[in-house]
Amino acid sequence: MSPQNSIVYLDHAATSWPKPKCVQEAMWKAMEEEGANPGRGGHVMAVQAGKRLMRARMAIAELFHIQNPLDIAFTLNTTMALNMAIMGVLNAGDHVIATSVEHNSVRRPLGWLKKDKGISVTYIDTDVHGNLDVKQVEAAITDKTKLLICNHSSNLLGSILPVKELGMLAKHHGLLFLVDAAQSAGVVPIDVQSMGIDMLAFPGHKGLLGPTGTGGLYIHPELDVKPLLYGGTGSHSEEVEQPETRPDRYEAGTPNTIGIAGLEAGIRFIMKQTVHKLYEHEWELTQQLMKGLMTIPGVRVLGPKLGEARTGIVAFQIHTLDSSELAFRLDREFGIAVRAGYHCTPLAHATAGTIGEGAVRASIGWNTIMEDIEKLVAAVKHCSESSRK
Amino acid sequence: MSPQNSIVYLDHAATSWPKPKCVQEAMWKAMEEEGANPGRGGHVMAVQAGKRLMRARMAIAELFHIQNPLDIAFTLNTTMALNMAIMGVLNAGDHVIATSVEHNSVRRPLGWLKKDKGISVTYIDTDVHGNLDVKQVEAAITDKTKLLICNHSSNLLGSILPVKELGMLAKHHGLLFLVDAAQSAGVVPIDVQSMGIDMLAFPGHKGLLGPTGTGGLYIHPELDVKPLLYGGTGSHSEEVEQPETRPDRYEAGTPNTIGIAGLEAGIRFIMKQTVHKLYEHEWELTQQLMKGLMTIPGVRVLGPKLGEARTGIVAFQIHTLDSSELAFRLDREFGIAVRAGYHCTPLAHATAGTIGEGAVRASIGWNTIMEDIEKLVAAVKHCSESSRK
Repeated sequence: MSPQNSIVYLDHAATSWPKPKCVQEAMWKAMEEEGANPGRGGHVMAVQAGKRLMRARMAIAELFHIQNPLDIAFTLNTTMALNMAIMGVLNAGDHVIATSVEHNSVRRPLGWLKKDKGISVTYIDTDVHGNLDVKQVEAAITDKTKLLICNHSSNLLGSILPVKELGMLAKHHGLLFLVDAAQSAGVVPIDVQSMGIDMLAFPGHKGLLGPTGTGGLYIHPELDVKPLLYGGTGSHSEEVEQPETRPDRYEAGTPNTIGIAGLEAGIRFIMKQTVHKLYEHEWELTQQLMKGLMTIPGVRVLGPKLGEARTGIVAFQIHTLDSSELAFRLDREFGIAVRAGYHCTPLAHATAGTIGEGAVRASIGWNTIMEDIEKLVAAVKHCSESSRK
Repeated sequence: MSPQNSIVYLDHAATSWPKPKCVQEAMWKAMEEEGANPGRGGHVMAVQAGKRLMRARMAIAELFHIQNPLDIAFTLNTTMALNMAIMGVLNAGDHVIATSVEHNSVRRPLGWLKKDKGISVTYIDTDVHGNLDVKQVEAAITDKTKLLICNHSSNLLGSILPVKELGMLAKHHGLLFLVDAAQSAGVVPIDVQSMGIDMLAFPGHKGLLGPTGTGGLYIHPELDVKPLLYGGTGSHSEEVEQPETRPDRYEAGTPNTIGIAGLEAGIRFIMKQTVHKLYEHEWELTQQLMKGLMTIPGVRVLGPKLGEARTGIVAFQIHTLDSSELAFRLDREFGIAVRAGYHCTPLAHATAGTIGEGAVRASIGWNTIMEDIEKLVAAVKHCSESSRK
């Protein structure tokens, strides 16, 4: 039996699976017909590969309301995009404000810069549900504050942070604003212009339904970010300095053309479905899941309350059962793929009061159906009951 | 007609094409059956994805005679691997020796570090054929020299540099030794142990026949290199510092599992064919191509002389015809894909005496046949004759 028929996959927050068929087909086609190196040759297939990258940039620009597609740099993943943004704008003495629901892909680069360059960081706590008070952010601004970083949606709690208000705040105080869209891209509307976003880091392989090895960073046209990588760009070969031209400045080395062809197909699939409908679909299922879990004695559901906005993430604990053990049993006994542990976000666990315990995270995606939710609830109920015997 | 039937593809030095069918099939299978996020969940499919990465590491370790597969870090491309190596070991005041056939992916990071950290660099000129005199390298060593960098095979000239001798030299003088295997991996035997290589940067999508979006860096087990990216690793989530464990230390964020599945298939294909036979196949065709080109009046072939060792690269010029124009005509009139220009290696052009002119580069791969060579020679002859009329 193919895994697609047997696995209940509820780990979309780690990576979406399966991808729409059009994504696989686009990659296959790219390998067959556009397999050359874009921008590194004038022959037909290299030109085609270059056009494919441009079309993918245009799709991303349309999705995020980015004025110029050349302001998008492709990266290996969101982590690389976040490192490029963070390392590229901060200097010794700078102060940064971030939130307690940041992923390690923000916390660790900041931790490194604290040590290496002496930057300082203030993490603003969200409440236990993952909601952020913008006033607390404002109160933390000092004359050294250069950058405000915000996880658009917590990868543990599923809460959606007030990016637009933070964007206005950043603008008002002359701060740069970096948004980590790892869990929101493709399911929560993002408009870099109206939201005042200076840098947007996004994954290709999660909500945008592309393959692994893709992601990107949008950089405001007037903002100069230091490159993360230096090297060949197929342009200005004779200059020893990284070219100023975008996106070349931020895309040294051969790009993942094949993966990006798949990413473009994923984004076009999403735009056809509409982000709005995908959000509604996922939200509806989170509500059903939460209701189901709440009927089980001893279950604690993390994140926003029932009826409130959230992405497709529902993390929970059972007080009688260790999270890792529960996730293991769900997988081995019921074929349900969820994730247990810290999810690379220890600060969010501290916020949620689950530090030292971890949690089981179920995450819903474009192809999740009501039956998957019912199976998960029934399985958790079974595990909970058998653990209390 | 499918492009595979109509294009004479001689741009393998940019990226190999087409890939063996097993590469595409492995990627398809990975998307269908191993599409989860490795190391970020204990469920069956995530474990499978983790095992796939490990199998790919083992294949690479076998190919390059690396003792511990965990000393290999996957990257987006060779450029990222070279940046990780260069940025990760150099500090203010360090001196570096490199060669005049380095790619911009070495020259530009070094250029940046010169400016940012005040390192100093000596480039040792090869002769006009791309041959390096190890004695000249030795003479350039100072008490500040920390790192020796060498392009294993020039991407313009095709010459093969004396890596083993350089490795011995580096060891003798206590230098770190970094090899750029962009053009050699998969076609020239590499043994990191006997060659004394401390860091080996390699592409996945060229001679290893994997897809774009793959590459890697081998790091000697006793060498601590500063990470290039900081972020989530699915391990040690609670620590703010990047974990010490390899490969986690050097692989923050979601790896390109799908691409790496293809890369593993490519490497296994190569090992079955044997690197030795692939080299012989390519070398034989380069000799035929050189002989053919030399019969055309006004053609100058760059790189090693006839009969000498070289990788599948043959760059040339016709004194009556601009290189870009020739490449354009080969593509549009004859369906032959080659590359014109500087190939991201202006220093090598200076060495070859072609600065300001560029060259046309034909590069041979695993699937090139004698007929392709004959077609190229005939087409160049035609262009040359028509340009003299």
